[in-house]
Amino acid sequence: MSTTSLDELNAADERGFISALSNIYEHAPWVAETAARKRPFPTLAALAEAMQQAVKQASGERQHALIAGHPDLANKAVRLDTLTVDSQTEQTSAGLNQLNSEEFEHFHRLNTGYRKKFGIPFIICVRRHAKDSILREFERRLHNEADQEQQTALGEIFRIAALRLDQHVRGPDRLKVYGRLSTHVLDTYHGHPAAGVTVEFFEIGASRESRLLSRTTTNADGRTDRPLMAEQPIPISQYEIQFAIGDYFVRRGTPLPDPPFLGVVPIRFAVAEPEAHYHVPLLATPWSYSTYRGS
Amino acid sequence: MSTTSLDELNAADERGFISALSNIYEHAPWVAETAARKRPFPTLAALAEAMQQAVKQASGERQHALIAGHPDLANKAVRLDTLTVDSQTEQTSAGLNQLNSEEFEHFHRLNTGYRKKFGIPFIICVRRHAKDSILREFERRLHNEADQEQQTALGEIFRIAALRLDQHVRGPDRLKVYGRLSTHVLDTYHGHPAAGVTVEFFEIGASRESRLLSRTTTNADGRTDRPLMAEQPIPISQYEIQFAIGDYFVRRGTPLPDPPFLGVVPIRFAVAEPEAHYHVPLLATPWSYSTYRGS
Amino acid sequence: MSTTSLDELNAADERGFISALSNIYEHAPWVAETAARKRPFPTLAALAEAMQQAVKQASGERQHALIAGHPDLANKAVRLDTLTVDSQTEQTSAGLNQLNSEEFEHFHRLNTGYRKKFGIPFIICVRRHAKDSILREFERRLHNEADQEQQTALGEIFRIAALRLDQHVRGPDRLKVYGRLSTHVLDTYHGHPAAGVTVEFFEIGASRESRLLSRTTTNADGRTDRPLMAEQPIPISQYEIQFAIGDYFVRRGTPLPDPPFLGVVPIRFAVAEPEAHYHVPLLATPWSYSTYRGS
Amino acid sequence: MSTTSLDELNAADERGFISALSNIYEHAPWVAETAARKRPFPTLAALAEAMQQAVKQASGERQHALIAGHPDLANKAVRLDTLTVDSQTEQTSAGLNQLNSEEFEHFHRLNTGYRKKFGIPFIICVRRHAKDSILREFERRLHNEADQEQQTALGEIFRIAALRLDQHVRGPDRLKVYGRLSTHVLDTYHGHPAAGVTVEFFEIGASRESRLLSRTTTNADGRTDRPLMAEQPIPISQYEIQFAIGDYFVRRGTPLPDPPFLGVVPIRFAVAEPEAHYHVPLLATPWSYSTYRGS
Repeated sequence: MSTTSLDELNAADERGFISALSNIYEHAPWVAETAARKRPFPTLAALAEAMQQAVKQASGERQHALIAGHPDLANKAVRLDTLTVDSQTEQTSAGLNQLNSEEFEHFHRLNTGYRKKFGIPFIICVRRHAKDSILREFERRLHNEADQEQQTALGEIFRIAALRLDQHVRGPDRLKVYGRLSTHVLDTYHGHPAAGVTVEFFEIGASRESRLLSRTTTNADGRTDRPLMAEQPIPISQYEIQFAIGDYFVRRGTPLPDPPFLGVVPIRFAVAEPEAHYHVPLLATPWSYSTYRGS
Repeated sequence: MSTTSLDELNAADERGFISALSNIYEHAPWVAETAARKRPFPTLAALAEAMQQAVKQASGERQHALIAGHPDLANKAVRLDTLTVDSQTEQTSAGLNQLNSEEFEHFHRLNTGYRKKFGIPFIICVRRHAKDSILREFERRLHNEADQEQQTALGEIFRIAALRLDQHVRGPDRLKVYGRLSTHVLDTYHGHPAAGVTVEFFEIGASRESRLLSRTTTNADGRTDRPLMAEQPIPISQYEIQFAIGDYFVRRGTPLPDPPFLGVVPIRFAVAEPEAHYHVPLLATPWSYSTYRGS
Repeated sequence: MSTTSLDELNAADERGFISALSNIYEHAPWVAETAARKRPFPTLAALAEAMQQAVKQASGERQHALIAGHPDLANKAVRLDTLTVDSQTEQTSAGLNQLNSEEFEHFHRLNTGYRKKFGIPFIICVRRHAKDSILREFERRLHNEADQEQQTALGEIFRIAALRLDQHVRGPDRLKVYGRLSTHVLDTYHGHPAAGVTVEFFEIGASRESRLLSRTTTNADGRTDRPLMAEQPIPISQYEIQFAIGDYFVRRGTPLPDPPFLGVVPIRFAVAEPEAHYHVPLLATPWSYSTYRGS
Repeated sequence: MSTTSLDELNAADERGFISALSNIYEHAPWVAETAARKRPFPTLAALAEAMQQAVKQASGERQHALIAGHPDLANKAVRLDTLTVDSQTEQTSAGLNQLNSEEFEHFHRLNTGYRKKFGIPFIICVRRHAKDSILREFERRLHNEADQEQQTALGEIFRIAALRLDQHVRGPDRLKVYGRLSTHVLDTYHGHPAAGVTVEFFEIGASRESRLLSRTTTNADGRTDRPLMAEQPIPISQYEIQFAIGDYFVRRGTPLPDPPFLGVVPIRFAVAEPEAHYHVPLLATPWSYSTYRGS
């Protein structure tokens, strides 16, 4: 599915409109069809809302079919590449295409249990999660009532749709589907931003194994040139930023013991709201530091 | 070697005195013999000083013999348990009895190089170091001049002797050979000490592998019942204290996101002065924390 | 009233016992008389408890008389010095003997209103308060019901009695009637306690006028030799500690702009629990500082 | 003097150019005259530089006349309003038109002493200073050598000229003559910006009397809608920001003692570089706070 503009969608004939939005809701062109009648849409938000309303006002049967049309998470299809392109991209984002046998077995068992209890596939907006938080959600939602779970599934489908819409349609506005994770290093020994500090950014799994996501250096303003994460939901997960503050003070010629009291400062934190802005700064001297969730 | 008291040493006959202190200076009973004439000693510090003076005023030959009488670090003897009991205890403290083949080879190579350059064994007060800092010292001291290195070796022997003396002789005073490492958790959300926080204390090696040294829980005053380290030199090394602050706030019923922004807070720092007091507190809310070298 | 010991009180004849404790409860020797029968008392706390019980189990009439026997706050008697010595000392502690005409008028008006509504004098443990907090309590308690206010008056009388008892009788224990206010300056630029910092300690009134209570200098441990307040309840009030941190860094030869970013750092806070320990430290570099209620 | 644009100046005839810039350098139209020949100027910075060069390359006599043409600071002229409009505006900025008799006398004595020693009026770029820092500079510069002081006077004239130029001529660029003072309040109890905090901003004189400069309230982002100071040099002086953080937490329904530990938090600091950006944030919980020079 390629990108288009809201203006083009407003001007298109009905068939063109439906075709352009066919994959926003998985295997459910009727959603676009219903929304088409409400044109023109002044904003992307209005279009997204119209499509959500189409789903909410559809019959229980249609809603069920919409839910049932989604693939199982991390099932064989991910390996066999038979998913829609969007589904495939989304599922790989959380590493679901790189499960080891044990993890694959775990997902398979949960999928089977979930289908058996609710008669529908487990649906979750994968781009908002890391593997661990998907598993936690899986376990948690298995205890829900069937009705409640149907609503949860629709809510996740709306999130998936919003992300696809924001990605495929250019409008005068953006949907609020992206978060932002940034940092900043302040040298409170000299009283100015700390430039040239090596910053390593990790994702930390539940079993504390870590995966290096990026490595960069602070600029003259003590910031990284680009945010650590932006233009995507920040997956619900644990992270660690490691700041090589010892090397920084050595380079500045600051009097230090050998070894310095502070070498690499690790800041470990978790993200719970993928669409929020997380600013995680470091204020440091050779003998002290502090951090906080800033804005 | 068992413990004795300064009073007993002052009252003993010369033979008894020498015998009691025979192993303070490795294979060098003449040090105690010289010092014996200066009795009585009002303090342990005075006795330590007298023994140091005996060494400093000895002939170059005797000094050389004293140095030469020390074992190679981490040599076969450590494995074969043929060292004096004190030497053995000291060398195991830094894990020198648990080297893998590669490390053993590394030490062996350094020992050989050192002996070849200086004609004496490499002497270092092992209890003030971790394996990594011993290796760093080894590399560093290999660049010294021979004269300078002889002085360094004597300095290390004085440190070893002071530790042995403080351990084996009870006097009215203590020698300043011990450091102290303590922590404290303050809950700046509720405005009082944080009780019941799980605290894990690790030593971190140069290659970042970590070794759990202790695990404890803060008491009503936010402190650990005993210091993390005391009654020993704090080995020159890198450490990490991990505070399970997320669980603490969960137990307190504090409103938190899921997962909490802060779960386990790691504070990583290095010790450069084994005889100093390092106080490393944590001040935390669910959204911020700070630490510093306190007193 | 002079000091005595619990042992002497336990050994005294009844008359001696009553006479020694006659002024713990104002004009009410019967309280001591009743308590006398419960002797011997192992602790001061047990004696205090027995005297409280005597009051609690007395008839309503006697309780009323006890309350009515107290002087009006800040009335003419304070000026005319006709109060019992204890009452006089207590009332001067909050500056009630130094009211200007307007304040005197204010107190007089409140006293009259209170007596008119409740038929008893307004009783408050003056040593736990500053002038402003007495006025706030006055206003607040004027809205109480009569029954409730009688209980409040007895509670305040118990506090007054406990303070007098702790002051006049030496026992194996102390009553928990004293608070403590301390500070500590840590130089997180150099990584050690800040010695030689001038510390000025003020009480701040509601209209923000300030009164210098003490002026001192931090010692080698970064603390003041004695706590800013101890061996007394910390009056409920607002305080400010001013730390001359700029001069400190100048003396240390730290590179600073002219004028330094931080000169005198004021920390302003209020005490709400007179019997608690307030530790209010300063952690500072030339460019940053933090403070918190510590322990 | 009204505003004009760099384009107009480049296009004007020589007379028009000189007339438009006649008052950038006080009573010295020859500066504009010399610079006119270098037209056109691509930027304001190029024009400023050309005018400075004209002064630097002028004869000693002309330089002296330029300096001598400046009025005495705070002399009778300020009262009699006989200064050029620019001079008058500048001198009132530091409160030099509101001196009491004692201060007026002090300035008069310094002016007389300075003129006697150097034969020129004391020149200082008043907009970069508060009254106290002008007096400090006066005292300091009285110890200079004559040559050195002539250079200092020219340097101050360049600063005055740059400020006037930036104010009167619109170009594609701005001269770096303005600083910025901003703040930010972060609530580290709830983990987000503190909105609705009353912020009072004071200038603090050497004798600690304070002058309220502005009073405002933080917005949803925890910032003030406009910086506390901008579009002007930040006068070298001491300032205090008072944050009503107690009221903020009361409004949020945070559990607090009565009175709250923190009511109004005062942050006192000094500005030494009028053209720099000073960001002075407050991070607070009901029990702790920190501040730093940020960026």
